[in-house]
Amino acid sequence: MQLGQVIGTLVATQKAPNLDGVKLLVVQPLDRHGAASGQPQVAADATGQAGPGERVMLIASREAAQTLERTFAPVDLAIVGIVDEVA
Amino acid sequence: MQLGQVIGTLVATQKAPNLDGVKLLVVQPLDRHGAASGQPQVAADATGQAGPGERVMLIASREAAQTLERTFAPVDLAIVGIVDEVA
Amino acid sequence: MQLGQVIGTLVATQKAPNLDGVKLLVVQPLDRHGAASGQPQVAADATGQAGPGERVMLIASREAAQTLERTFAPVDLAIVGIVDEVA
Amino acid sequence: MQLGQVIGTLVATQKAPNLDGVKLLVVQPLDRHGAASGQPQVAADATGQAGPGERVMLIASREAAQTLERTFAPVDLAIVGIVDEVA
Amino acid sequence: MQLGQVIGTLVATQKAPNLDGVKLLVVQPLDRHGAASGQPQVAADATGQAGPGERVMLIASREAAQTLERTFAPVDLAIVGIVDEVA
Repeated sequence: MQLGQVIGTLVATQKAPNLDGVKLLVVQPLDRHGAASGQPQVAADATGQAGPGERVMLIASREAAQTLERTFAPVDLAIVGIVDEVA
Repeated sequence: MQLGQVIGTLVATQKAPNLDGVKLLVVQPLDRHGAASGQPQVAADATGQAGPGERVMLIASREAAQTLERTFAPVDLAIVGIVDEVA
Repeated sequence: MQLGQVIGTLVATQKAPNLDGVKLLVVQPLDRHGAASGQPQVAADATGQAGPGERVMLIASREAAQTLERTFAPVDLAIVGIVDEVA
Repeated sequence: MQLGQVIGTLVATQKAPNLDGVKLLVVQPLDRHGAASGQPQVAADATGQAGPGERVMLIASREAAQTLERTFAPVDLAIVGIVDEVA
Repeated sequence: MQLGQVIGTLVATQKAPNLDGVKLLVVQPLDRHGAASGQPQVAADATGQAGPGERVMLIASREAAQTLERTFAPVDLAIVGIVDEVA
């Protein structure tokens, strides 16, 4: 799983079926010093609790969809945890 | 999911079975400033609405095929939303 | 799907079961200007028509194997179309 | 599978269902000389034995979840071995 | 599939269940000129014949496990052919 930071929200009215109701956030991958690294991605929020500024744990690929209530959602990246601390 | 911009269409008359009727677009991945980043890819359009110049949300891997009516299409990247706004 | 160009063929007599009879080509990924970009890969030809010099469309991961007649072939990249034109 | 080194532990109290009880470690991918290479990732420990400082073997994607007792855990990277020696 | 060269063997006594008996080799990805490119990876040998110095064809992800006799092995990279010639 990658570490990232939520940097915004995304609005898309024309979209694929099964994406309705999925909360989409823009996340910036982070390096080990907490600095931005690589391109931002769009992730579904499986915690229901993530918001801008928070540091999160991201899961990719097919597993991402399985974290949502509707597991057939066309999603390949999901927020699965809000990071309290890395020690 | 990645953010990208539709930059063209692709014509391929000799192709694998199950790709007939799948609308293929060439998309350029974008960085957080909306600038081109990385190589263009070919994506199937699951929204049925995307066209050149539009900013889109892309889903990769097996999930891509599942956004199409014919889910056995050999597709590993699909446009699942047209982006109205990133805030 | 990626764009690439067929640059050669590959011969491997000692190989995993289920790769017998699968036509393997060496392909060079291309950037948007048609220039070589990244490392060559080995792909199975699902069109049955691709040959050296042709520009092709490539599908990766599990979907690649599903384009072949023998879907249990250990293949993670396949040529699914010969590109006529990108416009 | 990648080689990496355990560099820390991660605490996340708000997380997706099915991550409870999964031991999460922060791992740094290594190059062939054993030097840090690329960004740290978060991995589940499937050996139950890995700890900070140890050199480990990592498996990615869907296979990662299948190494855990609870195979529906939303996990895309797992530690599957503690490396004794590379010769 | 990627091209690589076997550069060593790996010993790990503490490992995940189902990795017992799987032959693990360290492989170096190669570029089109046969030079080292990117980081070494650990691969399972599905040919049963690969050894240090040989040039091999590698398959990634879920397909890798399916090349082994025990298909539930937690493996995401496998050697599926020993390359005789690239022409």
